[in-house]
Amino acid sequence: MTGIKDVAREVEMSTATVSRALRGLPGVSDETRSRVMETARRLGYVPSPSAAGLASGQTRTVAVIVPWVTRWFFAAVVQGAEEVLRERGYDLLLYNLAGDESARHRVFETSLLTKRVDAVLVLSLKPSLDELARLQKLGRPVTIVGADVPGWATVRIDDEQAARCAVRHLAGLGHRRIAYVGGATEGVLDFTAPAARLAGFRSALAEAGLPHDPTLEADGEFSVAGGSRAAQALLDREDRPTAIFAASDEMAIGVLRTARELGVGVPEDLSVIGIDDHEMAEIFDLTTVAQPVHEQGRVAAQQVLTALEGEHWVPEQVVLPTRLVVRRTTAPPAGSAGR
Amino acid sequence: MTGIKDVAREVEMSTATVSRALRGLPGVSDETRSRVMETARRLGYVPSPSAAGLASGQTRTVAVIVPWVTRWFFAAVVQGAEEVLRERGYDLLLYNLAGDESARHRVFETSLLTKRVDAVLVLSLKPSLDELARLQKLGRPVTIVGADVPGWATVRIDDEQAARCAVRHLAGLGHRRIAYVGGATEGVLDFTAPAARLAGFRSALAEAGLPHDPTLEADGEFSVAGGSRAAQALLDREDRPTAIFAASDEMAIGVLRTARELGVGVPEDLSVIGIDDHEMAEIFDLTTVAQPVHEQGRVAAQQVLTALEGEHWVPEQVVLPTRLVVRRTTAPPAGSAGR
Repeated sequence: MTGIKDVAREVEMSTATVSRALRGLPGVSDETRSRVMETARRLGYVPSPSAAGLASGQTRTVAVIVPWVTRWFFAAVVQGAEEVLRERGYDLLLYNLAGDESARHRVFETSLLTKRVDAVLVLSLKPSLDELARLQKLGRPVTIVGADVPGWATVRIDDEQAARCAVRHLAGLGHRRIAYVGGATEGVLDFTAPAARLAGFRSALAEAGLPHDPTLEADGEFSVAGGSRAAQALLDREDRPTAIFAASDEMAIGVLRTARELGVGVPEDLSVIGIDDHEMAEIFDLTTVAQPVHEQGRVAAQQVLTALEGEHWVPEQVVLPTRLVVRRTTAPPAGSAGR
Repeated sequence: MTGIKDVAREVEMSTATVSRALRGLPGVSDETRSRVMETARRLGYVPSPSAAGLASGQTRTVAVIVPWVTRWFFAAVVQGAEEVLRERGYDLLLYNLAGDESARHRVFETSLLTKRVDAVLVLSLKPSLDELARLQKLGRPVTIVGADVPGWATVRIDDEQAARCAVRHLAGLGHRRIAYVGGATEGVLDFTAPAARLAGFRSALAEAGLPHDPTLEADGEFSVAGGSRAAQALLDREDRPTAIFAASDEMAIGVLRTARELGVGVPEDLSVIGIDDHEMAEIFDLTTVAQPVHEQGRVAAQQVLTALEGEHWVPEQVVLPTRLVVRRTTAPPAGSAGR
């Protein structure tokens, strides 16, 4: 059976260098690493999993806790994280909650403890105090994506700011009756984005001198179908809004569908804006506030790898920028001077 | 520290039963299992991972190899598989290739061997002979989703039949010039669906007595953007087709976008049909051949669990049914008797 010494002899390097290269550790150039990998493959060398684990105390596995892997946003974050982890020789253990509360309990209370993992990424959940205590007890690097949890490493966008940006765009076009389609601000999955986006909506209304009408705030459940239902109620009113800000592109797409079914023209009768820049946003010509999704996964993975492989690690709070992408679903309201 | 005996004493059951319940093994009623889990949680019992692994020789982890986790189809299959695995106490190790050939090599040649896993699910890849030999050498149950690999456990739809169903629908409406938007039949990721769907397209044309025109077959790369580009060329022709069959809904959505941009009315000037029943298909009113996606993941997971926990296991070839879903993107061609 081929051993690490055979590989080292073949590439004429020390076994220590070959070991570092094969384990994806830093201090090895890309060229050296690929030569070692190539040679190891050619010679049929398979590292012993137990030996590698025992030597380093590492499992080279990172757990990722995902609310819904079938939603584009989460899948894109997972893909970004996985790219970085794979490059460095780590595998990804996926815990998909699929919106199930008992799954959440099981993962935090049992799975994370019984599976040995080197680090944990938590996606778009705000861990409870009890869950934070359990994560702390693991003694492993943890990064939280999409939530603001003081004292912990986080990667996110400024959700309140993103919402303000959307509402400012609508107010700037001359809209005065602006409705909001968002999601529950509490619940099983405890996203933090819904509350922050609602707060941004309200503060931007106040900033523009527009009145706050709670009947123009609807729950779209952060899904296409939910956005569609929420729009039904908003567009059935006599005093219907001239613009709808949906807190996600999936909900905005649901709003567009209802508008089409009701014969409400977009953008001539109704402006619609979302948040995300979902892969389908361009197809729908949807105006949106784009966030770097893939990049949030990459940065989160880099954070835990830095913690695992570096000497000193300070949990950082990274806030990535968003930007307004104007397409064809927003315009000045009918009859306004702007048209 | 709380041990399994403490849990057994509290629920007044044998340690063997408690152990089976905690490990997700069969032979324990759902009621008993949930009482044991509940009690274990309350007492703060954490099973020792190494002890559990040593006793059973199992890692309670199933590897899932996915071509692209950001594509809806694969994410939905993963979610289906994960539901079944989680119910039975297994975790899911995700290998996302993201279309990268070197990732594919690394997973088959190294990762599967160095990580001990109990079973492997391979999604929509046709393993090469070399890869099959490596999977065989693992000595673990393997199920392949979405490909036809004789002698191995597989779960899929009949891709050729699904394509024939789509073309028969168009021919039945009176279309004579039907174009095909598919994907490369060879390449890094070696899906088997593209070749089978193309074969189904051609055989249905022959069956309907329609001529085969290779210039009406385009590569849409199984993506929205690719479908959009393929439609551009097909709709620019003077003798343009009256109908397009796209081998996936994502490509069909790309076709719809190009048609709208070029002012080609759907369905009055062009009929469009896909395969999948993608979560966005309804929003686009897309006629399609629906396949049970989530269910393919569930069945695949059940297969490997049966192999792991049963005594005798014969690799089964499961073919799940598809069905035509007629919405508003298909109609008789302009000027035909059917209009």
